[in-house]
Amino acid sequence: MSGSTPESFTADEYRARMDRAAGAAADAGLAGLLVAPGPDMVWLTGYAPTAITERLTLLVLAPGRDPMLVVPTLEAPDARRATGAPALTLRDWTDGKDPYAVTADLLDSVGRFGISDNAWAMHLLGLQRTLPGTSYASLTEALPMLRAVKDEAELTLLAAAGAAADAAFEEIRKVPFAGRREAEVAQDLADLLRRFGHSQVDFTIVASGPNGANPHHEVSDRVIGRGDMVVLDFGGLKGGYGSDTSRTVHVGEPTDEERTVHDIVRAAQEAGFRAVRPGVPCQEVDRAARAVITEAGYGEYFIHRTGHGIGVTTHEPPYMIEGEEQPLVPGMCFSVEPGIYLPGRFGVRIEDIVTVTEDGGRRLNDTTREMVIVD
Amino acid sequence: MSGSTPESFTADEYRARMDRAAGAAADAGLAGLLVAPGPDMVWLTGYAPTAITERLTLLVLAPGRDPMLVVPTLEAPDARRATGAPALTLRDWTDGKDPYAVTADLLDSVGRFGISDNAWAMHLLGLQRTLPGTSYASLTEALPMLRAVKDEAELTLLAAAGAAADAAFEEIRKVPFAGRREAEVAQDLADLLRRFGHSQVDFTIVASGPNGANPHHEVSDRVIGRGDMVVLDFGGLKGGYGSDTSRTVHVGEPTDEERTVHDIVRAAQEAGFRAVRPGVPCQEVDRAARAVITEAGYGEYFIHRTGHGIGVTTHEPPYMIEGEEQPLVPGMCFSVEPGIYLPGRFGVRIEDIVTVTEDGGRRLNDTTREMVIVD
Repeated sequence: MSGSTPESFTADEYRARMDRAAGAAADAGLAGLLVAPGPDMVWLTGYAPTAITERLTLLVLAPGRDPMLVVPTLEAPDARRATGAPALTLRDWTDGKDPYAVTADLLDSVGRFGISDNAWAMHLLGLQRTLPGTSYASLTEALPMLRAVKDEAELTLLAAAGAAADAAFEEIRKVPFAGRREAEVAQDLADLLRRFGHSQVDFTIVASGPNGANPHHEVSDRVIGRGDMVVLDFGGLKGGYGSDTSRTVHVGEPTDEERTVHDIVRAAQEAGFRAVRPGVPCQEVDRAARAVITEAGYGEYFIHRTGHGIGVTTHEPPYMIEGEEQPLVPGMCFSVEPGIYLPGRFGVRIEDIVTVTEDGGRRLNDTTREMVIVD
Repeated sequence: MSGSTPESFTADEYRARMDRAAGAAADAGLAGLLVAPGPDMVWLTGYAPTAITERLTLLVLAPGRDPMLVVPTLEAPDARRATGAPALTLRDWTDGKDPYAVTADLLDSVGRFGISDNAWAMHLLGLQRTLPGTSYASLTEALPMLRAVKDEAELTLLAAAGAAADAAFEEIRKVPFAGRREAEVAQDLADLLRRFGHSQVDFTIVASGPNGANPHHEVSDRVIGRGDMVVLDFGGLKGGYGSDTSRTVHVGEPTDEERTVHDIVRAAQEAGFRAVRPGVPCQEVDRAARAVITEAGYGEYFIHRTGHGIGVTTHEPPYMIEGEEQPLVPGMCFSVEPGIYLPGRFGVRIEDIVTVTEDGGRRLNDTTREMVIVD
């Protein structure tokens, strides 16, 4: 479906992105970029095939050459309707032909190519077999920051997605929690995200009581009870750009311990946010948030990285993780989402999308980070 | 979401599938199989991660060893709830660790491995880098028929999915077509598939008039008019198994030419169906259907293969295509879907899912293949 395709850009903008990408490839010593259907292709061309199948569709960008799209003949009419199509030359292939040979004709027979992380292994193997003199690196390895720095139009779309997610939170905090299943509250959240303009809901985590201690718990038929902590983590795409926010609410009055843990996570999230400024390595955001939790004695219960980038997907580079030395650049957007997970008991996570400005971080989510008491 | 996970199998059945797969790998001279999230993993373990992300999840099957699941620590609790989990040993890895090193510890450092077609290129590159003595083949290349032969329980589920799609057709033929947008009829079709038990709708193609001449057209805002041919092609998952059927209807009375073209496609579909019997190479099904269309003078307008397999996906091996010499085996299930596409004018496609029995083909769709006149 084309529901995730941003309609907000022109063919010229896609052409400029493809030019920049080819230039970045050359700077990185690559002979070209091989871009698979998915977020890279959406970002570079606006084209999202109806379905991603075993039939090869591949955008070929090589420095100094026109962008070429290898596409199954069947899908060529759809590809021609993509916003970025005027900036592309299509090279279609019919069932029974070897699409790797078609692609190989467009590439140098030696050299190193960047390839989309999510390109199918099957297709990479076909290229490696057809062009034994080539080598490959994933785009995240070769050009990790290709989509990471957002321009003004993208920031506007991300801010709108964030505002819609915030509006959903302001509504969900009014609904009854006690006595309802997690899945019912999750359905409310999904409906709210759509009502506030999301075309796609990627996740609506409602993790109550002990379920909150599993950071990737989605929903269950568990009936939420009074006294439960409930982690809410939800997002999707609006206007082709992502939202992702978490708040942890409590059904009725919390215990002192619950309040303490929530305060620690809130302080950690604040510390992560305050670490954001141009030139700071990504890992410093993780370190700043983690230090607060570790110093409070809960370090072993913060079992994931502090954040991930967001753009045409809800999950992409840059990653706020120990070992990531990439310096922050104005326009980068990512989550800051520390958490504490007490097995068998409860969890707390607080998450905002943050963008880097010349002066520091700017939040794209801004509902209260105080613990909200729900019914 | 786990919506696509069949609930109909036991841990013992998954264990038996994994044993058979490891045995088939050994027979094919492979050192093991590397199975990515998606249909292969669902079929082998019942496990479908909530989201497929850059974090490596990989099932490792090696002849003579216990099945191992490499999984992010965050997702390990979900993986442990999969039906097939009792047949698996989990090897979890935390953010910041190298998942390829974790995987490499489970593999021989030399040899050839089969890897899921849809495994991410990024992960294949990580394995190739970590284990330079290994080589890889896509599962479709190495073990194309791994999931192709369905057992009785699977056939029952596929038949139920087909019957539900047929029920949807019997309802959709009663709705008004003339004066409504393709997208509205498509929405009706999706609602019907869900009403008849589909948990997931993969496609609801409504291709009217000239749109019918693009075999991959999905839907548009085109208003369907009297005199239009309309290709309907729809399917999804019910009980974890796929449906996929096409019928071409006509709004009001067709012209002689429209009737003729429809008759040719119907005869071609019948010929393809009649070619189905054990031992016959897949390409003979394509040849049988294509011969009818070619002899009628429309060969250049049948621009795709005749069919594709179906199972836990709506699109998988075996393929009914020239060059595919794989003999049919009882239990295989695939589409037989010839079509004629007259650019700028109209298209006709008729499609049933067919399973191979000892005696020949058995259709899993059985609504009329005569041209249905709609309002």
